[in-house]
Amino acid sequence: MIQVEQLLAEAPEHARLDHDPAFAAGAGWVDGAVVPLSETRIPITDLGFMRADAVYDVVSVSRGQFFRLDDHQDRFARSCERMRLVNPLNREDEAQALNDMVAAAGLQDAYVWWCVTRGANPASPIDRLNPSRFANRFYGFAVPYIFIKGDAERTAGIDLWISQDYIRIPRNAVDPRAKNFCSLDLAMSLFEAGRAGSTWSVLTDGNGVLTESPGCNVFIVKDGVVATPDLGCLEGITRQTALELSAELQLKVEERTVAARELEEADEAFLTSSAGGIMPVSRVNGQALCDGAGPVSRRLHDLYWQRRWDGWHGTPVSYS
Amino acid sequence: MIQVEQLLAEAPEHARLDHDPAFAAGAGWVDGAVVPLSETRIPITDLGFMRADAVYDVVSVSRGQFFRLDDHQDRFARSCERMRLVNPLNREDEAQALNDMVAAAGLQDAYVWWCVTRGANPASPIDRLNPSRFANRFYGFAVPYIFIKGDAERTAGIDLWISQDYIRIPRNAVDPRAKNFCSLDLAMSLFEAGRAGSTWSVLTDGNGVLTESPGCNVFIVKDGVVATPDLGCLEGITRQTALELSAELQLKVEERTVAARELEEADEAFLTSSAGGIMPVSRVNGQALCDGAGPVSRRLHDLYWQRRWDGWHGTPVSYS
Repeated sequence: MIQVEQLLAEAPEHARLDHDPAFAAGAGWVDGAVVPLSETRIPITDLGFMRADAVYDVVSVSRGQFFRLDDHQDRFARSCERMRLVNPLNREDEAQALNDMVAAAGLQDAYVWWCVTRGANPASPIDRLNPSRFANRFYGFAVPYIFIKGDAERTAGIDLWISQDYIRIPRNAVDPRAKNFCSLDLAMSLFEAGRAGSTWSVLTDGNGVLTESPGCNVFIVKDGVVATPDLGCLEGITRQTALELSAELQLKVEERTVAARELEEADEAFLTSSAGGIMPVSRVNGQALCDGAGPVSRRLHDLYWQRRWDGWHGTPVSYS
Repeated sequence: MIQVEQLLAEAPEHARLDHDPAFAAGAGWVDGAVVPLSETRIPITDLGFMRADAVYDVVSVSRGQFFRLDDHQDRFARSCERMRLVNPLNREDEAQALNDMVAAAGLQDAYVWWCVTRGANPASPIDRLNPSRFANRFYGFAVPYIFIKGDAERTAGIDLWISQDYIRIPRNAVDPRAKNFCSLDLAMSLFEAGRAGSTWSVLTDGNGVLTESPGCNVFIVKDGVVATPDLGCLEGITRQTALELSAELQLKVEERTVAARELEEADEAFLTSSAGGIMPVSRVNGQALCDGAGPVSRRLHDLYWQRRWDGWHGTPVSYS
């Protein structure tokens, strides 16, 4: 299995480019300009903060190339539309802002996060009922690439905890297809998993059906068939990538209702995320599914990184 | 019915005290110090922003007195505990911070908001599963008192829209008793209400049972009995006040499951909030319940303000 973090540390194509020391921690976008990460701050009265009234997206950069930037921008536009937010940047300016943050920080491998918030409440309370009365705002940041799980844990496989204490916020309360901030359910389930001795969590809908995991989509593999939930979860770009790569490996793939019980009885499982790619699961609620990362998960993991470094769906960062 | 906004504008006991012009818009608390509102900004990587991982509270000040400060501090402590957050300020320092923001801005009538956020992610991803690995943060702000609905609309009564498109986030996903930021469901329901020509919204649990309204608890009055939901809603301090004042007026009060249909068939209804007190509802989904603010709502509204100005449950602000 490719040790990606080790490669990042050693390979010259991952070396950080020259950058202003003020941008050592990363770069951000606030009030229409690129600034050092430490200066990237949100007004306390922004409803994106006070009320989680915002949508966001995350794209990754590896070896100087954005991965599926168009797909992320498409999804972000859908998120804005679903929550009646208007991006103050057009598509081209948005791509430029993402590029400029990565370039300012000199990052060849980056985690790039951006959002549009509702902005502050309008002066007249009655205008709170009209989305056109708000001045929506764009913020973002780029930092060195983040792995939710590092080489060692991806190789050994995650111990995934199916939450007993929390269900995922249902889609008729907050539509999870619009990538949004409302995630206290997910955050609390991680603490529950930690107490149980597991290393990540996944939530059901309260009726035994899997939804999503903090920052990740979930997949199971059983008798050579790869399956992932089709509802109540984020439209993950890495999820889409895993489905495409599975098809390429001539595995049967299914997007459908997946029961929590199926996860417990799977041959192997994995999580997908822009922050970590494909992350094998070897245990569920402390019980072993397989010995370390399962064979299908390993193949998908390695193919994912090989393809990325071949430039598949890549958009080069302009550093000059 | 007392015209409270008019009194605020005219009565000398509501005049704003001397303050540094930098604090004209209000004052905030960030990194342990009182600063002008415009400088009260949250680091973009704080999980209170990125993931709505925070709890908050709001207390109001009228005629130089906090209302039920102890009750708000008690509730805030419970919110922190429920979400495994540790307030970096002890109870006394928290009260001092709230006081100092109001005093810096010279406000006799104030809306005072504060929160504890999870803070930034710890350096090691596995530490995200352990709440003790985060450095939680305190932020706050005080601004001139906000009425969700002004004198004219409180007198005429709100047209309340029962959302068809959104349900309230259920309590087994995110416990609403811990006052938290996850409120895109509530925000979107306001836009739905606006499109329908109503002036505020209320959400059900998806099974025809009332929960709460954006920033407010909801009450109905039928045949002289006052009733309010007992589950799936915020433990409102103004809600508690309305229950106490109703009992004092020798009205029968009930905390119980309240059906949306009961609201449609009520004699009158009202909302309660720290940002506005007691706010009569005269129409539901465009259909009249009563002619303007109903008689019980009016009595409670006036008694609420009279009691506050008498110093009931009041804590004087120290301005020096």
